This record gives sequence, structure tokens and C-alpha cells, in this order.
Amino acid sequence: MTNEELLAITALNSWKLILNRFDQKLAALTDEQLQQRVAPGRNRLFYLLGHLTAVHDRMLPMLGIGERLYLELDLPYITTPDGGIVDPVSASDLKKAWAEVNSKLTAAFEKFTPADWLQKHTAVSDEDFAKDPTRNRFAVVMSRTNHLSFHSGQAILAK
Amino acid sequence: MTNEELLAITALNSWKLILNRFDQKLAALTDEQLQQRVAPGRNRLFYLLGHLTAVHDRMLPMLGIGERLYLELDLPYITTPDGGIVDPVSASDLKKAWAEVNSKLTAAFEKFTPADWLQKHTAVSDEDFAKDPTRNRFAVVMSRTNHLSFHSGQAILAK
Repeated sequence: MTNEELLAITALNSWKLILNRFDQKLAALTDEQLQQRVAPGRNRLFYLLGHLTAVHDRMLPMLGIGERLYLELDLPYITTPDGGIVDPVSASDLKKAWAEVNSKLTAAFEKFTPADWLQKHTAVSDEDFAKDPTRNRFAVVMSRTNHLSFHSGQAILAK
Repeated sequence: MTNEELLAITALNSWKLILNRFDQKLAALTDEQLQQRVAPGRNRLFYLLGHLTAVHDRMLPMLGIGERLYLELDLPYITTPDGGIVDPVSASDLKKAWAEVNSKLTAAFEKFTPADWLQKHTAVSDEDFAKDPTRNRFAVVMSRTNHLSFHSGQAILAK
């Protein structure tokens, strides 16, 4: 294996590891427990799951993998803070959406070559990318892995 | 720049970005605010800072960069839960230790070539590394970046 392939695979492992840890925690939760807040007055686990699903769904077009699957999650779980809108989706449907989006992303990542990882994402202009080639797909996935870790740290505080 | 160099630099940027975000939050906190808990009955920000400093300090020998600088932080901030031991260090000394450790790590990372990143870390045996070459320095730094994100998510919950 070449150095560039090994670097890409090591990063892909990091994505899978953080996702698996989160999924193990999620699988252990009942629908009622998903309504718990991470701390008094803070987000519900359900809201965090909606938020993460919407953010990961946005990666599909951003990384040129496909169309959005769950555009309808943006308003309740990205634009609006928790409590602003009644959940438009059931716990089981939200869990299915989360699994589907990540499964589609991971399948695509596994086929990316190092050169694919280094392509620009669609949220950066050609001009900006020419100035800063680190604004690539690899950076997006590391950023989202850190974002998932950030909310995982909050999620484990729920009682 | 080669693909392998770009992949390595993109990951290094991710480490710096998460660290900078945390440092900006930290700089805004008074010593008294560092005594706040992230949620009722949960860790104090001071404890999290001690924990992160000890964990990052451990990377120095783990990645072959140098000797431990703050071995004495392991007992109060890794081995013992918050509240078990009176803080053996002042807020300003802990902040200095945190900055020193990260500055030493980042300076070393900036000199790593792709091949350096792919060397094994010292916590894995030659035999295990031969079986799984993703147990390299690159994986350690991505893991620690995610770990910092995890606790950053908790830290911003403190009131």
C-alpha cells in the first residue's frame, strides 16, 4: 500500500470508529430515553440525533456523492433550536435515516482514492480552492468526525 | 505538493483548528469560571483541562517526540475522577502546561513527513503494527483531536 493510501485509510478508520461508538450508545437507548436532555435546559438526545443526521445528509451533495435524502430535517434540527418545532419524525424513522445516510457516506468513502479525497468540496469556489487546496473532501470528513465527537461528548452526559 | 503531503497537512490543520477553538474558549474564562462544572454532578472545566493536558503530554513519548513534561498530572486527572484529589496545580500553571505541551506537539507535527506520520506509535508492538499499519502516529493524532472535540462539546455546556 502506498503512503497516500495508508493516510486515507487511517482517516477513514477514524470516521468509522467514532460513528461505531456513537451507534453503540444509540442502540442502547429506548425511544423514551432519546427524549432526555444532555443537561438541564440543554438539547435532547433526539434533537442531537436529528441535527447530526441533517449535517451528515448535507455531506452527500457537498462531497459529490448524491442528492440530499432528508432535506426536511434542516429546519427542525439545524435552523431551529431544540423546542422550537414539534419533532416531524418518529424515533424509529430518525434512527433509520441516520443509519441510511451514514451507510451511503461510508460506502462512498471506501471507494475514494487519495486523489478523490483531495478533490474540492462543492461548498468552496474554484478560486478559493486554488488558493487553499486543503479545502478538500478529506478536510470535510475530518471536520464532521470532530463534530460527531463534540456532540457524542454531550450525549453521554444524559442521565 | 504531493497527494501524501496534502493529506498530512489537511489533517494537521484539523488538529490546529480544534485546538484553536478550545484555546479561544479557555482564554475567555477566569480562574473562578474554570471551577464551573459542565453539568450538575459532572466534571469541572479545571478537571477537563488537567485531563486533556495529561493525555496530550502522553503523546510526547508515544509519538517519539520527547519525554513526558507533566507526569504528575496523570494521578489527579486521568487515574482519579474529579473530586478525588485536591488540584495540585494552580489555574495559571495548568494553562501554561497545556500551552507548552501543545506547542511542543504542534512544532513536531509540522516537521513530520508523510512517512513520519505513518510510523508506528510506541504503544503498539512491532508484531501488531505489522498486522495493522493503521496503528500509526497519524491515527493517534486523529484520535486525540476527536478526544479534544468530545470534551470541548462538554465544556461549552458550563454556565
